[in-house]
Amino acid sequence: MRTVEWHEGRVRMIDQRKLPWELVVNQYDNYADVAHAITDMVVRGAPAIGAAAAFGMALAAQQFDATNRPELERYLEEAAAVLKSARPTAVNLAWAVDRQLRVVRDESWQRVEDIRKELLRSAQRIADEDVAINQRMASYGAALVEDGMTILHHCNTGALATVDWGTALGVIRTAHEQGKRIHVLLDETRPRLQGARLSAWELEQAGIPFDIIVDGAAGHFMRTGEVDIVFVGSDRTAANGDVANKIGTYGVAVLARENGIPFYPVVPTSTVDLSLASGDEIPIEERSPDEVRSPFNLAIAPEHYPARNPAFDVTPHRYVTGIVTENGIAYPPFDVNLARAVRGELLQPPPGEQWSAPPRAYGEPPAEHTPDEERTIVAPGQRSLFDEMEW
Amino acid sequence: MRTVEWHEGRVRMIDQRKLPWELVVNQYDNYADVAHAITDMVVRGAPAIGAAAAFGMALAAQQFDATNRPELERYLEEAAAVLKSARPTAVNLAWAVDRQLRVVRDESWQRVEDIRKELLRSAQRIADEDVAINQRMASYGAALVEDGMTILHHCNTGALATVDWGTALGVIRTAHEQGKRIHVLLDETRPRLQGARLSAWELEQAGIPFDIIVDGAAGHFMRTGEVDIVFVGSDRTAANGDVANKIGTYGVAVLARENGIPFYPVVPTSTVDLSLASGDEIPIEERSPDEVRSPFNLAIAPEHYPARNPAFDVTPHRYVTGIVTENGIAYPPFDVNLARAVRGELLQPPPGEQWSAPPRAYGEPPAEHTPDEERTIVAPGQRSLFDEMEW
Repeated sequence: MRTVEWHEGRVRMIDQRKLPWELVVNQYDNYADVAHAITDMVVRGAPAIGAAAAFGMALAAQQFDATNRPELERYLEEAAAVLKSARPTAVNLAWAVDRQLRVVRDESWQRVEDIRKELLRSAQRIADEDVAINQRMASYGAALVEDGMTILHHCNTGALATVDWGTALGVIRTAHEQGKRIHVLLDETRPRLQGARLSAWELEQAGIPFDIIVDGAAGHFMRTGEVDIVFVGSDRTAANGDVANKIGTYGVAVLARENGIPFYPVVPTSTVDLSLASGDEIPIEERSPDEVRSPFNLAIAPEHYPARNPAFDVTPHRYVTGIVTENGIAYPPFDVNLARAVRGELLQPPPGEQWSAPPRAYGEPPAEHTPDEERTIVAPGQRSLFDEMEW
Repeated sequence: MRTVEWHEGRVRMIDQRKLPWELVVNQYDNYADVAHAITDMVVRGAPAIGAAAAFGMALAAQQFDATNRPELERYLEEAAAVLKSARPTAVNLAWAVDRQLRVVRDESWQRVEDIRKELLRSAQRIADEDVAINQRMASYGAALVEDGMTILHHCNTGALATVDWGTALGVIRTAHEQGKRIHVLLDETRPRLQGARLSAWELEQAGIPFDIIVDGAAGHFMRTGEVDIVFVGSDRTAANGDVANKIGTYGVAVLARENGIPFYPVVPTSTVDLSLASGDEIPIEERSPDEVRSPFNLAIAPEHYPARNPAFDVTPHRYVTGIVTENGIAYPPFDVNLARAVRGELLQPPPGEQWSAPPRAYGEPPAEHTPDEERTIVAPGQRSLFDEMEW
């Protein structure tokens, strides 16, 4: 099954708080419960939250039992506000809810029953698109992975963070399916341990070799030459390439640059917010200190000890080697090239030349971070992984 | 009581695995059990381990029940080997044991009974010196702390890591006792959570305001301007100023430099190993992956998930602002100034001038890291904190 899906009039979600110990599937028939599930992190990961909220809007339309269209619209606007406020940092949440609100306001649908159906179709489309987008991103990202590489990964960005497949972990999965022998170092990712619990569970299922490490050990392994490349996710990316992601990502990025290791966020364009000039404008959610003191009710410090718990941090774009999107990889300057990637702009071949496939890069990778494979992949006439992709 | 002490023919140690939940004191009458206690981290922290091993040698002499001096020497050499191998990284362990071996080999003591007494006196001296050294370091370090500062701290370096008072946490304690209003951000310090458990417990006892944070959040707080200075300990420091300390220290140091925040290891000269040209020569202990998966038997990941657990990392000296020792603060170039600090070399006032107290710095702090207080403290004739110190 998918991480989030519609099943017989209900929203089904894998309860990620129970993994890796038990695979429990929760069912919801009420949008407010879906909002709670998002807040409580039954479901987490920006794309999965987006899909859950979209299905939540479909649920809300189903809950509304009158036939008056203006009243439905008011009801759904209220539902939209509740769902949007469930987590403040993930941009996909607002993006998916707004996309559903456009369906609600679309004058093509007059009957309440039609709006109900269309909201469900639209939610399904958001979910399906997410899977397709992940697989395209994974192909682009996997081309950066060479046989024998060790990849460092933070948090969980796999099938559980998305509807299916994953963003950064999707890249790792695809590289593995391409037959590349890879090894993954998984930051355990305190406070909620998504790396040690969820990413480890997914890699075990996929048969990909890994080691869990504490977050503080990432720098050590980078300095001693045991890390070749870093892939992470992003909950929200600003127009200048600043990336808001799970707390600890900023430290990983700084340490990667300090050690000459390429650092790639894998980012569906739905998480890019071109209206934000920089990451400084991204609100950072501070969650309960209980997550620090008692993760999953395992008390590691007395409950009266004060603690602070920012859930995200901002990685300034100067630490970012490139941003992998479903339209290709954006390289610096991001203020130009990320917008091109979001638009899905295709480059033209130079006059008199032909490309077997459009190049997948917007801009040039920094010289010190260019794997050999990448330098040749845009050469005209060359057969590549991308020949088989749909454009 | 002290963290480690001799009591009625036995070695007493606070069992640090039980804190902050219970204050349990273990007693040992066998050196092999002391070695085990060091391996199992009943006692931890380089200076506390050194004192424990010194008392362990005194215990061994007590256990030996014959009167033949050469046999005692052989017995104690075996005990020394067992104690030294209990933890590989801490240089104090070998330093304290070797100091005891010199007592054993000293021809001044011929009778087994005299050697027994002298080993105990020597262990007591090591313990007492440690407390005095910490208080001197704390005075030097506290002069770097200004009223209102927020201090970031990693692991535990307090009374529990030493015989009493502490190194980096000793600095924090002294700054607090001087009436400076300070706030401390405590890295929880996975895998063994010495920050969340032990440092938090000590600061609570001392009434010093703090917040526990996950290790991955340190960079966020540095980037957002919430950290003014970093103090950490060191288990072993090379001649060039490279510092081996608890895993995660390297990342803290890199992030501090990236954000223009001064980074000071607080290091008794007994942890400086001038025979090591650089930190690359320091062996890094890899401990059981169970500490990652199940800290204190709290299972956070299934026991068959692979994990790696380096206990220490090396921070290259280019990230170190200055090294606080009991003889003063060494600034770059460390290959010159750290050796001077280890020798306790005192500077001479310029011709025609007099100092009210010898300056406490070997070399000059980097300009961007010079607090106002420090720029004036070596001025001739000025009254300072150090007037009251014993030289």
